[in-house]
Amino acid sequence: MDRIGIADTMFARYDMGAEAVDELESCPGHGERFEIVRRTVPGFKDLGVVCKKLIEEEGCRIVVALGMPGKAPIDQVSAVGASQGIMLAQLLTNTHVLEVFVHENEEEDPGRLAAVCVDRSRKHARNAYWLLYEPEQLARRAGRGVRQGYSDAGPIASASQRDPSPSPSPSSV
Amino acid sequence: MDRIGIADTMFARYDMGAEAVDELESCPGHGERFEIVRRTVPGFKDLGVVCKKLIEEEGCRIVVALGMPGKAPIDQVSAVGASQGIMLAQLLTNTHVLEVFVHENEEEDPGRLAAVCVDRSRKHARNAYWLLYEPEQLARRAGRGVRQGYSDAGPIASASQRDPSPSPSPSSV
Amino acid sequence: MDRIGIADTMFARYDMGAEAVDELESCPGHGERFEIVRRTVPGFKDLGVVCKKLIEEEGCRIVVALGMPGKAPIDQVSAVGASQGIMLAQLLTNTHVLEVFVHENEEEDPGRLAAVCVDRSRKHARNAYWLLYEPEQLARRAGRGVRQGYSDAGPIASASQRDPSPSPSPSSV
Amino acid sequence: MDRIGIADTMFARYDMGAEAVDELESCPGHGERFEIVRRTVPGFKDLGVVCKKLIEEEGCRIVVALGMPGKAPIDQVSAVGASQGIMLAQLLTNTHVLEVFVHENEEEDPGRLAAVCVDRSRKHARNAYWLLYEPEQLARRAGRGVRQGYSDAGPIASASQRDPSPSPSPSSV
Amino acid sequence: MDRIGIADTMFARYDMGAEAVDELESCPGHGERFEIVRRTVPGFKDLGVVCKKLIEEEGCRIVVALGMPGKAPIDQVSAVGASQGIMLAQLLTNTHVLEVFVHENEEEDPGRLAAVCVDRSRKHARNAYWLLYEPEQLARRAGRGVRQGYSDAGPIASASQRDPSPSPSPSSV
Repeated sequence: MDRIGIADTMFARYDMGAEAVDELESCPGHGERFEIVRRTVPGFKDLGVVCKKLIEEEGCRIVVALGMPGKAPIDQVSAVGASQGIMLAQLLTNTHVLEVFVHENEEEDPGRLAAVCVDRSRKHARNAYWLLYEPEQLARRAGRGVRQGYSDAGPIASASQRDPSPSPSPSSV
Repeated sequence: MDRIGIADTMFARYDMGAEAVDELESCPGHGERFEIVRRTVPGFKDLGVVCKKLIEEEGCRIVVALGMPGKAPIDQVSAVGASQGIMLAQLLTNTHVLEVFVHENEEEDPGRLAAVCVDRSRKHARNAYWLLYEPEQLARRAGRGVRQGYSDAGPIASASQRDPSPSPSPSSV
Repeated sequence: MDRIGIADTMFARYDMGAEAVDELESCPGHGERFEIVRRTVPGFKDLGVVCKKLIEEEGCRIVVALGMPGKAPIDQVSAVGASQGIMLAQLLTNTHVLEVFVHENEEEDPGRLAAVCVDRSRKHARNAYWLLYEPEQLARRAGRGVRQGYSDAGPIASASQRDPSPSPSPSSV
Repeated sequence: MDRIGIADTMFARYDMGAEAVDELESCPGHGERFEIVRRTVPGFKDLGVVCKKLIEEEGCRIVVALGMPGKAPIDQVSAVGASQGIMLAQLLTNTHVLEVFVHENEEEDPGRLAAVCVDRSRKHARNAYWLLYEPEQLARRAGRGVRQGYSDAGPIASASQRDPSPSPSPSSV
Repeated sequence: MDRIGIADTMFARYDMGAEAVDELESCPGHGERFEIVRRTVPGFKDLGVVCKKLIEEEGCRIVVALGMPGKAPIDQVSAVGASQGIMLAQLLTNTHVLEVFVHENEEEDPGRLAAVCVDRSRKHARNAYWLLYEPEQLARRAGRGVRQGYSDAGPIASASQRDPSPSPSPSSV
């Protein structure tokens, strides 16, 4: 059975990992085609190595890494380093790790911030599922301004007013 | 048959990947000397690893990676990390990955932004072709202020007013 | 017997390493299940390589790296580089290194700064112990706004006012 | 025969590569002891991988990498990434790559900018030659404030007014 | 016989390398237990690879890398990249490289700047010696606010006014 990894933190102020797990449990094949392995680390700077361990030691085929950088300037700096670790984990294993960071300063209101956490965590959990089992879902949305955490930005109007509906993705590639 | 990779995102607000594919399909040898492999990922931070996979798992000899960082400051920070991933993918595989990023804030007007997307995507797709099959096209333009997305900046007037036309590129090197 | 590494610096203005050692000595199994190996380097930029040496040459299964970046702007820049080294040490060894940095400018008052040093050093030493022997302690606190150095931020109120007490962490993952 | 690599770009607005080639052709042993291999890539972010390829696939013992970051803020950011690639190429091959970047905003006047290009390209080409064949030329200038692109800054007056002429470099090291 | 590497630059405006060499020559065992290998490169961005070469090709067990970033903003950016190279050299070889950078803007007065160069170069040369042969010298100074280039900052007063004299470093670790 395939394994999908979920890595999250104690530092985050919302249980994003639980949202991601719940979303994956609702995907076709959960418990049959794939199972979920979850690991919690202290903070987002610890995500890089735990993702690599999930891949190399736990056999995960893809990982969703969730964290919530705080409001302090130092947190923003730390988030850059944390992202570099997650990037390196991917490059050294040839395995996707979807970084799901919700910055605490994205929303003033706690309720709205929680809503961003829910939406972004679930959409990226779904993206992980698609990357493994339904890549055509991603291909179909190429260049369509898809967002996680908020509603889609959508495609910009093109210079030549071409209709994007009859999707221009070439069939043979 | 050689393979050229195209990696793009759902996040981008213009289908830059389709432009790159279309340009490559118009190059000599498409379908005979080389074929195109396209992969779409969620966002530009996912490009690094998919490029490495295109090279190591799909056998691509070169990759064009297309993304559109958004207007938010955090997007600019993320773009730096995404570039580092693409850089690392190249260094670890000894394979060129041409990064084609159009920043959403490059142009206010959607039509003009789309035009930048078209121009930059196509020119870099052509550059990929040249790197593989016609490196002399690049050598001929060394130091000529060539641009993608906009018209060329051109060479600066030299200190000694030397005429750049009789190209000074040495024949034996 | 397992080994837990402590890496600290001469540069720091508080003996954070001693706090971490003391905390670990109070953990169950000290001297039986695990022993402590401590190394002191000149400054925080020397932590990355000493952590990797503790892991690869001294056989440590986890390391706590403690440092105190100074008040000067250059110290902040150096701290970023130091963090990158610690991150790389982890990624190249698949081993956690908990970075415990107390920035000298976090508190004006020396007494308060010392208190941050004590709290952060001890909590992360405990986190290291948990990562090795009681990972369920971390899982239980996922998304709970746990902090080191200061009191916990706690979870944010959720959008749907869901009660976080009946912890939603799935049993099978 | 040894090989010295020259990597440059179409993006640059001055043919810095030609200057470097010309300088190397004037060095003792050109065509006998060493030959020059030149590769042109689209932009400076493509230099890292081409340098590594010049070293590992073309057998170059040293490389001079020339680029001209533009005036836009994004160009400065890209230049940092490009430098990281060049750094990594060196570290992964144990081979020097001399980075010769002339920032377009270093000089307002095109003529002066071109002069910087000429001077910096040629001096670094000469440095590459020295690193390979005459390292004593470098040792002799240790701590002397040597510059490329502009005239030397020279050494600062020392605290104890020590005379730097009777060079203090130890004979046995 | 062990080898200690000294890497310095032509760019620096003070012969920091000579100071480091002189300090090491005054350490016990010079010429018997260890010898010095010195290499000079053009600028501080060339230090990373020469340090790695000193370790891997010249057999140095530790390296002191000395450089002087200039006053221009671009020099500060370059210094960050140079540090990353030195960091990577350490991580890839499991060998300490002590980075000794004196920023030209640390002091206005040339005499004072030179004094910083002397002090920092010599203290770090001594640190290198200690790391190899007398690690207890470092352990004894853990958390004591030791500085190079200037006088020590010293430890901060602790929250509980604990007396730092009866050093709390545990004997068994």
